[in-house]
Formats: sequence, structure tokens, C-alpha cells
Amino acid sequence: MADDKKLTTRAKDFSAWYNELVLKAEMADYSPVKGCMVIRPNGYGIWERMQRALDDMFKATGHQNAYFPLFIPESYLHKEKEHVEGFAHEFAVVTHGGGKKLEEPLVVRPTSETIIYSMFAKWVQSYRDLPILMNQWANVVRWEMRTRLFLRTTEFLWQEGHTAHATHDEAEAEARQMLGVYRDFMEGYIAMPVITGQKTDSEKFAGALRTYSCEAMMQDNKALQAGTSHNLGQNFARAFELKFQSEQGTEEFAWNTSWGVSTRMVGGLVMTHGDDNGLRCPPLLAPIEMVIVPIYKTDEERSQVLEAANNIAKSLGAWDRREYARLRIHIDSREGIKPGAKYYEWELRGIPLRLELGPRDLASNQGVLVRRDTKEKRPVSLDTLGEDVADVLSAMQRDMLAAAVDRRDANSHRKPMSYDAFRQLMDGEGGFVYAGWCGMASCEAEIKADTKATIRCLPDEEFRSAEVPTTCLKCGMASTVEALWAKAY
Amino acid sequence: MADDKKLTTRAKDFSAWYNELVLKAEMADYSPVKGCMVIRPNGYGIWERMQRALDDMFKATGHQNAYFPLFIPESYLHKEKEHVEGFAHEFAVVTHGGGKKLEEPLVVRPTSETIIYSMFAKWVQSYRDLPILMNQWANVVRWEMRTRLFLRTTEFLWQEGHTAHATHDEAEAEARQMLGVYRDFMEGYIAMPVITGQKTDSEKFAGALRTYSCEAMMQDNKALQAGTSHNLGQNFARAFELKFQSEQGTEEFAWNTSWGVSTRMVGGLVMTHGDDNGLRCPPLLAPIEMVIVPIYKTDEERSQVLEAANNIAKSLGAWDRREYARLRIHIDSREGIKPGAKYYEWELRGIPLRLELGPRDLASNQGVLVRRDTKEKRPVSLDTLGEDVADVLSAMQRDMLAAAVDRRDANSHRKPMSYDAFRQLMDGEGGFVYAGWCGMASCEAEIKADTKATIRCLPDEEFRSAEVPTTCLKCGMASTVEALWAKAY
Repeated sequence: MADDKKLTTRAKDFSAWYNELVLKAEMADYSPVKGCMVIRPNGYGIWERMQRALDDMFKATGHQNAYFPLFIPESYLHKEKEHVEGFAHEFAVVTHGGGKKLEEPLVVRPTSETIIYSMFAKWVQSYRDLPILMNQWANVVRWEMRTRLFLRTTEFLWQEGHTAHATHDEAEAEARQMLGVYRDFMEGYIAMPVITGQKTDSEKFAGALRTYSCEAMMQDNKALQAGTSHNLGQNFARAFELKFQSEQGTEEFAWNTSWGVSTRMVGGLVMTHGDDNGLRCPPLLAPIEMVIVPIYKTDEERSQVLEAANNIAKSLGAWDRREYARLRIHIDSREGIKPGAKYYEWELRGIPLRLELGPRDLASNQGVLVRRDTKEKRPVSLDTLGEDVADVLSAMQRDMLAAAVDRRDANSHRKPMSYDAFRQLMDGEGGFVYAGWCGMASCEAEIKADTKATIRCLPDEEFRSAEVPTTCLKCGMASTVEALWAKAY
Repeated sequence: MADDKKLTTRAKDFSAWYNELVLKAEMADYSPVKGCMVIRPNGYGIWERMQRALDDMFKATGHQNAYFPLFIPESYLHKEKEHVEGFAHEFAVVTHGGGKKLEEPLVVRPTSETIIYSMFAKWVQSYRDLPILMNQWANVVRWEMRTRLFLRTTEFLWQEGHTAHATHDEAEAEARQMLGVYRDFMEGYIAMPVITGQKTDSEKFAGALRTYSCEAMMQDNKALQAGTSHNLGQNFARAFELKFQSEQGTEEFAWNTSWGVSTRMVGGLVMTHGDDNGLRCPPLLAPIEMVIVPIYKTDEERSQVLEAANNIAKSLGAWDRREYARLRIHIDSREGIKPGAKYYEWELRGIPLRLELGPRDLASNQGVLVRRDTKEKRPVSLDTLGEDVADVLSAMQRDMLAAAVDRRDANSHRKPMSYDAFRQLMDGEGGFVYAGWCGMASCEAEIKADTKATIRCLPDEEFRSAEVPTTCLKCGMASTVEALWAKAY
């Protein structure tokens, strides 16, 4: 292997490691348009599987997909004051269409609340028309100065759920429900544990009543906000006259929620599970679950081994009662590349299992199965390969989540800590710090200025410490809530 | 039923019928952005099923999905001369980003050849890197003056396949293969028969060597170009220096193909199968295959009938060995709406089957099954409902294709026709006319100016007439090919 193929280690430079992994594993590439990336098949295949799983979960909770325009008249974005203040500096603006200057500039959607609720207003008359439970898969554009592949790009792919309800409580329940769906997905599929909780006012979505988020810890101990769910209250309903006649005959404004996750999750997956050899992809999201690498010297051996590999792929890849029982197998039959070089490539790409298959293995009706996560290597009988592989894949999915939980907990701090100790921690190794907060925006702002750490969320009950902190991390005044502090992407 | 719910008949005004159907069936709506539509769940559900089926077919033919940026630097679009001439008048241009004027304007992609092949050029060094077989699902923007829901909108959703090959013949085989995939999909899923063939130079894609298309006949006898596949030759490879080292060590330009279908197909589905009561959706693409309408007078009857409906939905909707054996069923349990009004709504939306279920039906262990396509209504035993429904759905899918083929053939003209007769036909009922063409662009242009009819394609062999036409429809000179003439969307 050429040395230029090797990744910088995580310990040496986490940020360089991440960029090199994404580029060398051919997950994404830079494009000629500043800040916009190209998602290559190895990265897009993971995103596709994320989409499929989430889409099923959205439908199971009663949502339907729809599609709204890419362009939003600039005036629409100005109708909700906080909203436009939050996004205006990121607008990409279309000023010319069909060779002519437009009468009103069009903004490429940074998010679609304004255009969607203007349509809801047209469709809703009575309480009978509620709730509306919609989702759209779309691209959005937010002009960014500093971009990182998958994590922060000018254009990104996401889904945005948008709902309208007759009451505050229904909207609140919806926002919480979708936060739960996100958590289930991130833990169940990405094997990435998250802390859920509420954002402070200074960190909430521009125009929302309340924002909830999922916060994951990356291997450099920084937090990644991996998904958000907003109770928008009646703010957008007022701006767009989204009204309905109630059962009692009164005219009311509807209550909205919106919630989104994006291709950023692919970056989260890399920074949660990658190692110095490349990606480790959780089996449920891997476009290929097992790669078979044939080993041979002669042409005769080659055709013998390839035949066996084809038979395995055919029988294990066959359609079974349930889709997940149908393994996604690839045979790397490329000629002129040595097995070792192939191993290296598939490790870099994070494929969960490798089956090495040579003439001597075949003679004893076995192969050598290698786990990407633990590097464990062991002979397996070809007679029971299907069951073995299914078992190992389930175990990997579980083990990867457990390992990520352990790593996060080992780098979380719940014991009372002085502000000096906190500052030193954030200057050094970082991590998640649970500490009291007086509720003042000024303390929050001063800590951010001092240390770059922010309140990631006010954690939901199940994530709070057994011993409730009684004083504010910064000012020492009585604490009103427990906050989760960390530096973040 | 209020009269304002009724559709204008097709016979009275086909165009008004189409618009009303799309709006009243809540398939799409106009948006506040001129020329851009909102695709509502009833329309998007059909598009989603189209995507799923096509995506499987693309993957089965070895293609992988990827995603390229929405924005293209204007200079890129100018690198292929014919290409920019074909699209420049339709550009939507972003001139400002992040509050600043951009150094170089960005065009919102009208199609992605330029940006994609510039990336291919970066990735390809040797013949070993070929072929590249990629597809992307994306939105594109072409500024349009006259728009029609689904058929022609400024923004639309589509897929665009892009490939690179080492030889002309491989590229040609790929372009033809994907045309075949489109035809299989349109006939097998949309139940919309198509004529495949080659476009003339005046109708081919801007920048292509050859363009092939699928042409379907709508119920007003006009043609709809439902999909195109292009052999791009080396035109874009030259423009973007997409070169590779051949097996012989020489430096060569690659050969490209691109191919696309869009949300326009949803419009084609409506205009192929809709009737004066609304949509008739082919079962394979219907988001709901069967709606159960409970019939009751008392509360007791209601709970009895709903229980039976739930049991049916549960047993027939259960996961079976194959996904298509899992029926997509909806129970319309809305209160305060009479069964007749429900029937009307589901007919408008085109749901293939309706099961009417009342207390008297239940007493004799049966329901009344109504086919949307033929309106046939018959009692069915609940014991064999699963098999019955599966059979009827298969029959509908077949029958709808057969009916569309019959209608098209009845409105196709293959006997020699004078130019006067042709003009009268195009002035009147229209249809597909197979006739000789001398090969001169001038004859093509004159006929278009006279009659608005164009050469839809030079049909592939299997679609050509048994008796080869010997003279040009327009000038009477010797004919070099048989052409398919029609007015088109």
C-alpha cells in the first residue's frame, strides 16, 4: 500500500482524519461551486438507507410526503420577524429568470416554513381539515462561509416535517413524538446514542416557541446537533393567516410544528464510528453488508472460488420472508489487485463483514469471516454461513451502539465542577458537562465567549443527573435547571 | 354532490378537465411562485411509487445513486456550445449569496451534464475507472412562460442518469438499454404504451449525438414525450477534458450518455387513464389499492362494520412473502360524510378498488367490490377476499394497458395520406400519423409551421409500418425514413 493512502490518525488531527476519510473512502468530494459538495455513491448509499428507514417511521406515525417549491418570494420570508432575522444572512437569491430581471427576487429555500404554511392557509378551513401531517425530502441552501463535507455545506439534503394542529397540546405532543422518532432512528440505525432535551432561547430555531434537539458526542468529545424538532406555536399561523373554524364555531390560528434531519447525520456516523483504518458502518445502514474477496493463484482456482462466491451470494442474497433477511453481498472479483489491497479498500469504506475465500478454505468447506468493528477473524463453515452472518451483523449493530454509549459516558462529567476546572476541561480534552444554570442569557453568552462551549440542551428527565445541581456553573447563583454544556460542530 | 365538484367533461374541454382533475383530486396545486407547483400527497404518493420502481430497475442494471450540486457556475454551461444555446433562455440565475454579489453568477441546474462530467473528469484516469454508471434524483429549474401542472413547470422533479464509457458502442448500448427500461416501466407500471425511436436533429437534446424518446398518446390524441435517453458522444468529454488512458496506452475522450424521466409522467398517467369522474390509477402505482367504505345507520352497526373492516385490513395488509402481496388498504371511517360522497371522492382520486361493507353484507359474510376502471360492481365472499382482490388488481393493470393500446392504435394512421388530408386531421381530431420523410429539416419545419405537428420520433423497427412509405409527406420526394407525426405537449 502506498503511504499516501493512509489516513492521518484521529489522535494526531481529528479534523484532518475526518476529511481524508470522507474523500478517500469516496463518500463525498468538493465541487467547483464553493461550499457545495458532491455526494458520491459510497456516501449516498448510506443516506439512501437512512431515508428509507426514516420514511417508514414517518409513515408509521401517520405522515404523508409532499413537495413544495424550491423558490420562496423574498417577501414571504419577511413575514415572520424572528425567522427572517435568523436566516437572512444565509440567503442565496435568484434575481434573474428566463433572461429577465425578476420583479421580486426569489430566495432559494433555507427551510420551508413560510411557503408551506402559506399553502396550508389555503387548504384549511375547519377543524375537520386538521391535523395536517406532512413531510418533504428536499435540498435546501444556506450560504455558509466555513464549510465541512456533510457537516456544514451551503446546499444540503434533508427532510422537513411540517404539521398543523388545532391545539397547543397536540402540536407539543407531535414535536415530542418526532424527537422520539429521531432518537429511535439514531440509536437503532446509526448506533449513535443521543441526549434529547430543549434548546435555550438563544439556541432555538428562528421563529419557534420551543426547539428540542438530539445531541450526540463525536470522538473528539464535541457535540453534534443531529436533529431538531420545533413547536412553532402560532407564530407562523399568524404571519400567514393559517386560521380554522373550531368545533365551537370560533375562528382560531392553527399550531405548527416542524422537524428535520439532514445529510449531516452521515458526518455524525463517520465521527461516531470511524477508526484510523477508515469508516465502520453500522450494518443496518451499510449499502453492502458483506464483501467476498476471492483468493487464488491459478485460473482454475479463480473460477472455482468465484463459483463458490456466486453460490453464496445467490443463496444468502435471495429474497426471504423479510427484507432484512436478504443480505446485501458484493463479490470483489477485480483482477490485477491483490487481496490485501482489496481488504484495505473495504475497510476504508467501512463494510461490516469480509469473507475471505480461497481454495484451501473451500476444500474444508469454510471461509474466513472478518468483522470490521473488532477486526476479529475466524473460520466459518459454509453450511451455516447464513445464520452466522445474520448473528454477527446483529451483534455488531448492538456492540457499536454499546461502545458509543460507553465512550460518551466516559467523557461525560456530572460531578460538581468549578468554573476554572470547566474552562480547563474545554481548553483540553472537552466532553459533555452537566451543570447548573441560573437561566440568564448573560451567563450563557459569557461562557461561550470564554470557552466556545454552549448549552447543547436542557436534558430531558431521563438524562438528568441523580443529584440535581443547585448552583449556576458561571455565576454561582441558584440554579433553575440542569444544562448540558459542550463545544459543538 | 354540489355541482362545483363535477369535472368538465373530456369531450367538452380536455385541457380544463385535466386541470380540474389535478386540482380537485388534490394531486397538485398552484404555488405563490409563478410556474412552480406544489405536489400534494395524492400526487406525490404516485411519484414515490414511480421512483421506487424505477430506482430498483436502475440498480438492477448496475447503476448507483449520487448527488451533485444544485448550482452550476455559469461558465460551465458555456463550455458546450449547443448545450448553452439550448438552455440559456431558461436559466434561473443566483447573483447574490450571503448578502453579497457573487463574483460569478450561479445557474440553478436545468440539467446536470456540465457539473457531472467536470467531476467525472476528476475521477477518471484509466480505462479501469470506466464505465461510470450513475443516477441522481433531483429537482431542476427551467424558466417557462406557459406552465401546466405536472406537464411543464419551472421547477420539476426528475432523475437524470449519467454514464461514461470507453467506446461509442458501449455508450450507444447503454442509451438504448435505458430507453428499454423506460419503456418497460411505462408499460408495466403506468400501463401507458409508448412508441420508442430516435429524435430528428431539430428535436434532439442540446449537445447530444443522438436522442431517443418514448412517445405516448394522450386521450386528446396528442403525443407526450415521456422520457428521453441520449448518446452524448464525446461532446461533453471534449468540453470538460474527460479523458482516460486506454488499455493500449493512448489518451482518449470518454463517451457519455444521459437519460431522464420526470414528474411529467404523473401528468401522462392522468391523461392516459382519467375519465369524466376523475383519475383511474394503475394498481401498481396507487398509494392506496383498496378503500373500504363502511355503511351503517346505528352506532352498533358502525362498530360492527368497522371491526370487520379492521380485520380485513389487518389480514390483507399483513406482511407476506413478497411485498406486492401486501395490500395497501385504507378504511374511510370519517363521520358525518355519507357513503355516496365518499365513493365520489375516492373515484375522483382514482383508487383502483372500493369495498362497500354494510351490516347486511356482513350477515352473509360478503362485501361489494367495485372496480374503478370498469365500474363493475359485484358481491365477494369475505373468505376469499384476498385472492379475489389480488386477481382483480392484476387484471386491472393488464386491462388498463390493453385499453390504452387499443385507443392509441385506433387513433394511429398508417395508410398513405395526402398532405391536405394530414392537415385536416391535425386541424381536427389529431392522432399519430406514420408517414415518409425525405430527411430535410425544411419539410419538418414547414409542417410544424402549418399544422403544429412535429416528428415525434423515427420509430424503432418494431413500430414501423409493414409497408414502408416511399415518399415524403410534405414534398413528395423519395422518403429516407418513416416518421411518426403528431401534435405534442
